[in-house]
Amino acid sequence: MSEKIKTVTAAMVIIGNEVLSGRTKDANLSFLGTELNEIGIRMMEARVVADIEDEIVGAINALRVKYDYIFTTGGIGPTHDDITSACVAKAFGLGHGRHPQAEAILLAHYKPEDVTPARMKMSETPHGAELLLNPVSKAPGFRVENVYVLPGVPHIMREIFSGFKHRLSGGQPMCSKSITAYVPEGRTGGPLSDLQDRHGDVEIGSYPFARDGKYGASIVMRHTDPARLEAVAHDVRQMVRDLGGDPIDD
Amino acid sequence: MSEKIKTVTAAMVIIGNEVLSGRTKDANLSFLGTELNEIGIRMMEARVVADIEDEIVGAINALRVKYDYIFTTGGIGPTHDDITSACVAKAFGLGHGRHPQAEAILLAHYKPEDVTPARMKMSETPHGAELLLNPVSKAPGFRVENVYVLPGVPHIMREIFSGFKHRLSGGQPMCSKSITAYVPEGRTGGPLSDLQDRHGDVEIGSYPFARDGKYGASIVMRHTDPARLEAVAHDVRQMVRDLGGDPIDD
Repeated sequence: MSEKIKTVTAAMVIIGNEVLSGRTKDANLSFLGTELNEIGIRMMEARVVADIEDEIVGAINALRVKYDYIFTTGGIGPTHDDITSACVAKAFGLGHGRHPQAEAILLAHYKPEDVTPARMKMSETPHGAELLLNPVSKAPGFRVENVYVLPGVPHIMREIFSGFKHRLSGGQPMCSKSITAYVPEGRTGGPLSDLQDRHGDVEIGSYPFARDGKYGASIVMRHTDPARLEAVAHDVRQMVRDLGGDPIDD
Repeated sequence: MSEKIKTVTAAMVIIGNEVLSGRTKDANLSFLGTELNEIGIRMMEARVVADIEDEIVGAINALRVKYDYIFTTGGIGPTHDDITSACVAKAFGLGHGRHPQAEAILLAHYKPEDVTPARMKMSETPHGAELLLNPVSKAPGFRVENVYVLPGVPHIMREIFSGFKHRLSGGQPMCSKSITAYVPEGRTGGPLSDLQDRHGDVEIGSYPFARDGKYGASIVMRHTDPARLEAVAHDVRQMVRDLGGDPIDD
């Protein structure tokens, strides 16, 4: 895989014992991977870590120096197992306390009798953090440098993300093209490898499936230039025909 | 969180650009997390990495010294982007080539005219690897030391896993108990934190939900001893009642 333009990169830290135990299925990685791709940011890595301070701090610090953008999900609610905000502060060596604007948002949102210490914990951020506003349930996410801290509940995470997505600086969006071939990978594998060698600038993936008892694969090409994609797609279609298959543009 | 008995741990390396791009949703983490938990092995971390040699090798080497068991999924098919096997060899500093037993399995499975170099690539393992037999599509997974290498296609991964699950050495299985409370986390948060402080040996998680316009949370307790769980569940129920809620045992 070689790309001539600079790739803008991202990584994700998914925080929560419930994702590791199998109780909850993460739905945020596929959402963010897709959304970021649209604006030319490529998700390069994701780590799922437990609600353990050292693990969260370690993952954030390993990734934030390696990728352009880091997104964390989970662990910013009102309960004792929500420790992400304090961990981000620790990762950056920052103090941690109530963010005046977050405090004001929560005090305006809750009835006086509903203002509990647990709820007000959600106004705490690392010092100097920028809030990421939450139009759904008000308790905000926040950003410190290139680390964007979001809740784990998918519909709230998505609303917050859509509020700042336009401010992210992407590269050229990656385009993709998919061709379905009812030819097993064991037959496409060799010619497809040759094709990848000939077109090193286009990333080619092969994703096998079994449908109605027939084996096949989706051959997915990715590049920033649609014209390059179409040129390689032409060769992929020919390859599928040469193997006796009938290529289907998805 | 404190546990008196030794915890047997696991981590996962999920390999594939398609999971990061959002094209494919991983279904293997929640499966393995649940299955391993049943036999007393706790999933502690998962990393999703791209089809890039350095990333795969780096993740395997970082995790295999830290946890008891490592499971990789993805990247062991017949195409050029399937590089996991070679990466595991590199991670362990082992040679890489056709495994005689794997070769025999594939040659017996395919008709002579279907024996392609791409298919036979699936017989390659690090030298000395133990095969993990595949009753579905034959191409085996394999094990090197504590690293179990599995395909990404969920139904095949599950069949292979079920073939060796009984050979894994777990600790005491973690039991869990879940109580649903239609009381928002902003109210349970404080008392639940006190409860966690009083019962440090039991891991208590709170997972919020909104159902039919009402906010609540599932409060999940985890411990190896069902009697300890029931004791804490008793206190959680009382806490929910004290907050005006009606605790529901899930």
